[in-house]
Amino acid sequence: MKKIVMAIATAAALCCGMASAQSATTTRYVLSSVAENRNLPAWSLDSRKLHDPADWSIRKYALHGGKQEGVDVVELRSGALKIVVVPTRGMSVRSVERGDVKLGWQSPVQETVNPAYMNLESRGGLGWLDGFNEWMVRAGIEWAGHPGMDNGRMLTLHGRIGNIPASEVEVIVERGAQTTLRIRGQVDEKSMFGAALELWTEVSTVVGTNRFTITDEIRNAGALPQEFQIIYHGNYGAPLLEEGARFVAPVKELRPIDGEAAKAMDEYATYRAPAPGFKEQVYGVQMWSDERHRTLVMLRNRAGDKAMTMGYSVDELPYLNLWKNTGAAEDAYVTGLEPATGYAANRSLERAGGRVPTLAPGETRRISLDFSLLDNTADVARAGTAIEAIRSGRGTTMNPETIKPAS
Amino acid sequence: MKKIVMAIATAAALCCGMASAQSATTTRYVLSSVAENRNLPAWSLDSRKLHDPADWSIRKYALHGGKQEGVDVVELRSGALKIVVVPTRGMSVRSVERGDVKLGWQSPVQETVNPAYMNLESRGGLGWLDGFNEWMVRAGIEWAGHPGMDNGRMLTLHGRIGNIPASEVEVIVERGAQTTLRIRGQVDEKSMFGAALELWTEVSTVVGTNRFTITDEIRNAGALPQEFQIIYHGNYGAPLLEEGARFVAPVKELRPIDGEAAKAMDEYATYRAPAPGFKEQVYGVQMWSDERHRTLVMLRNRAGDKAMTMGYSVDELPYLNLWKNTGAAEDAYVTGLEPATGYAANRSLERAGGRVPTLAPGETRRISLDFSLLDNTADVARAGTAIEAIRSGRGTTMNPETIKPAS
Amino acid sequence: MKKIVMAIATAAALCCGMASAQSATTTRYVLSSVAENRNLPAWSLDSRKLHDPADWSIRKYALHGGKQEGVDVVELRSGALKIVVVPTRGMSVRSVERGDVKLGWQSPVQETVNPAYMNLESRGGLGWLDGFNEWMVRAGIEWAGHPGMDNGRMLTLHGRIGNIPASEVEVIVERGAQTTLRIRGQVDEKSMFGAALELWTEVSTVVGTNRFTITDEIRNAGALPQEFQIIYHGNYGAPLLEEGARFVAPVKELRPIDGEAAKAMDEYATYRAPAPGFKEQVYGVQMWSDERHRTLVMLRNRAGDKAMTMGYSVDELPYLNLWKNTGAAEDAYVTGLEPATGYAANRSLERAGGRVPTLAPGETRRISLDFSLLDNTADVARAGTAIEAIRSGRGTTMNPETIKPAS
Repeated sequence: MKKIVMAIATAAALCCGMASAQSATTTRYVLSSVAENRNLPAWSLDSRKLHDPADWSIRKYALHGGKQEGVDVVELRSGALKIVVVPTRGMSVRSVERGDVKLGWQSPVQETVNPAYMNLESRGGLGWLDGFNEWMVRAGIEWAGHPGMDNGRMLTLHGRIGNIPASEVEVIVERGAQTTLRIRGQVDEKSMFGAALELWTEVSTVVGTNRFTITDEIRNAGALPQEFQIIYHGNYGAPLLEEGARFVAPVKELRPIDGEAAKAMDEYATYRAPAPGFKEQVYGVQMWSDERHRTLVMLRNRAGDKAMTMGYSVDELPYLNLWKNTGAAEDAYVTGLEPATGYAANRSLERAGGRVPTLAPGETRRISLDFSLLDNTADVARAGTAIEAIRSGRGTTMNPETIKPAS
Repeated sequence: MKKIVMAIATAAALCCGMASAQSATTTRYVLSSVAENRNLPAWSLDSRKLHDPADWSIRKYALHGGKQEGVDVVELRSGALKIVVVPTRGMSVRSVERGDVKLGWQSPVQETVNPAYMNLESRGGLGWLDGFNEWMVRAGIEWAGHPGMDNGRMLTLHGRIGNIPASEVEVIVERGAQTTLRIRGQVDEKSMFGAALELWTEVSTVVGTNRFTITDEIRNAGALPQEFQIIYHGNYGAPLLEEGARFVAPVKELRPIDGEAAKAMDEYATYRAPAPGFKEQVYGVQMWSDERHRTLVMLRNRAGDKAMTMGYSVDELPYLNLWKNTGAAEDAYVTGLEPATGYAANRSLERAGGRVPTLAPGETRRISLDFSLLDNTADVARAGTAIEAIRSGRGTTMNPETIKPAS
Repeated sequence: MKKIVMAIATAAALCCGMASAQSATTTRYVLSSVAENRNLPAWSLDSRKLHDPADWSIRKYALHGGKQEGVDVVELRSGALKIVVVPTRGMSVRSVERGDVKLGWQSPVQETVNPAYMNLESRGGLGWLDGFNEWMVRAGIEWAGHPGMDNGRMLTLHGRIGNIPASEVEVIVERGAQTTLRIRGQVDEKSMFGAALELWTEVSTVVGTNRFTITDEIRNAGALPQEFQIIYHGNYGAPLLEEGARFVAPVKELRPIDGEAAKAMDEYATYRAPAPGFKEQVYGVQMWSDERHRTLVMLRNRAGDKAMTMGYSVDELPYLNLWKNTGAAEDAYVTGLEPATGYAANRSLERAGGRVPTLAPGETRRISLDFSLLDNTADVARAGTAIEAIRSGRGTTMNPETIKPAS
């Protein structure tokens, strides 16, 4: 049913401003495209095919069975790193692995759900939870937070971008002194008399490293100013999350979202063992940053020999939502470290708090986040030192004022 | 797009506890599987291929056109019996036929609707009706009854399980002194912060008989106790339903669901001719049972030469909803004989009535129903005698109290 | 996955009453059919294959990528005319082109959205706008207007027919003195305890002309009388719409739908340049007609050398909704000329205004509209003369009473 066509272009500054111009070879592969009416049912590429001495491979395939029928996946392997991107679900990242360090979690939802089977309006606006299981899903981008009315319109939990199939999906291979791999996708959140927002996402890694970067561009495609919101809803279970695991960050201010979180503020940085019936706690966090306005946070296991670090700009993402949900393993033992344009409260509250940015007509906002997967004590210790350097001895304000007013 | 792969395993106690261990050969065929990322686009098997002297065949194919595009169907023929199962719609059974005896009905909805095109929330929670046309669709399993608020949450009509594609679909062939065929499927009703329920369904028949069995297992996959509800919404039109057809059952107590049904209580056991504008009547029924707590009910045509019988345990399914909807043929001339864990009222009313069971963490509830298709006067008479034997002269309480309070 | 099967029947009065019996050859091609369980993934036919000296071709193909994955399209070329029909979206017509005259517009929604990704209930019943970008989409047919409650039921914007995949799709080629091409489709809007409406649509053209016809039949398939509504929501952007473009019609009465439209009533017949933030204006219009009760309206560009005309019966479609939305190009610079059974207000208001027709059980209503694409001053002038002839000097009543009561 689908024509197998492959577009290969070889050029330097071919893929817009995001892919930095290289002196070496840049090759672009279009895997799926509305513009070209194409969706390759299966596709693969590896370093041997390109006679690249680096060790990597990328393949696209479809998922089958249950509610994941027809979902497209792009799987990247780069040395020991494995990254799984889901174009059909707004370019979410299902999981990242490096040996026994894993970014991801076990949700009660096991299938990678095709948005065709989703209904965001169900459960009083909580339908998003029926498909929630990725390591990294973007909440946004017309709105991103909790469900409820805002200006006469019902907003559903965490917005729509995570359940919109990507319109364009491409892989870019840049070869020179080192090889860089990029999985890129465009996701449109547009409607008549509604949002006119375009998201270009990119996951990239330099082959041979333990790092990767998410780089997004959000554009107002309309003729009027538009608000937007984005929360990088990154979620972690075992092996990073366990009893005694720690959230390590140069916290400038910490606020509870509600009374439930307020009760446990003092232990925000540590994690308990799984406990059936645990009630989720959410904190709004602002970070100290370095002279370039970048900050660094870490989630590390109890022993301090496994961790992930996340670096980003507090200009781009001034807030972080810290979600602690240490319920039973069957119900989800998970924590979210979620840099964002604002907190997870309903947009009406976020607007009142001055945390909803606006894009001018045609304006593009660029956001990037760097992730590292650490698998030894020395690296974890070094990351801790780097975080302390950003803090530079500056303290943490524990702000007891809840983000949501007591009802 | 889909790889055609077939897994054939030959083993005895291979398919969990449900398939009884046989001294003879048991073969399992995986038709669709999330775990193995497989959905065979087409598949078939028959007795000749296996050099089985019995006369049977099973095939899987997809439906096309309209709202049934991409719906998977598994069709079993065993002697004169034909059973059509729909994995894409929660393993519903579209129809069962044996010669000119048919289990099923003519709904205004003619297509077997892909859940991708359904919206259970539409029509104020009546969206389920847009896809309702199977002989047997399960209502459930987080909730099963009428729409409305329960504990601050909007429940839609008859729940979700009938519109969830099966995650695993397999066929099992057991050959020995006789041949048994089983179509099995797993359907997950799971969400984050929501239901954590798994349903394994099975339709099985011994080749050469006029009988088949539905065997379900419902499991609480979460770490906390969970309520569940199930109604086996089996529906009958011509030829069993006609003017003068009869519902024959050892009724212990009969209650009307509302004032409309209350008016016609006296004639609950008989059916009228199709009448445009007929208003549906629903009764809540409890049955007398035998010493093994099993009961038997029958729907038979006027002449008493065609019928279906249904046997089940009143421990597993203490209630039966009797739905009489003898409207015009174009609008649906149909009756439902629906054994259930409770009545069809909203879960809030069912809970108040003590009719909502709870599963402990990890607990599994097993339910089985036996169906026979009868095509001659002698068999129908024998079934009537068996039902009277269960009654053993015990009477019927006509309880005028409506299940739904008058509003 | 889909079998490629093609049914070719050659007969005269083969395709129901709509295709007029011809002395010459009539051939029917079934492209998609629920009844025959078929959906050809790709199909094509052209005049050379049939040794027809006329110049035409028709092909069916699928769209890929984003939210248009799996959408079927039928594209007809007849001389300079190109017509694109979308069976998956209720047989909507995506666009019609003849050289540089185009029927269609640029919506912020660029993809031809698969209804599997639609949720008509979202945005408080405005979800329809997430897929709105066709030249001609039918609003209807159980209801057609603005969202809101009617008799205790929430009606979503413009009904469902535009987001229901066609159950039957066929192409008919009639060859004789001239060649006529017909793309036909059946779309069912049916539910249990709900609508029982069938729509047969047809787009036809005589090869070599600049004209085409839409012919629809709406049937009450139920046993009780049923209301229905239909609005032929035809939408126009460049090149017909521009500053100084004109709506030319024998207007008998014009009413504003609300106060916003009331303010600009005097300039209803002319169009302004694109203006960011422009608020849409809607007018309810009744037309003068000729002795056969047919009327003719035109949209023409400023220079008067490009236009489209639309002719229809005021018995079949007594009202026309004139939608003026001259916003910025990015947000949609578009006007709708929409003949209808009533105005676009909620059905409750339309019923109160006596503008909701009813079909008796089994009754069929036939509606046809003729369209011409004009590309020169002489033809445009001739159309203006024809419209004036219909008017016959009769005046226009400017009725200031808004269709929606001031709230």
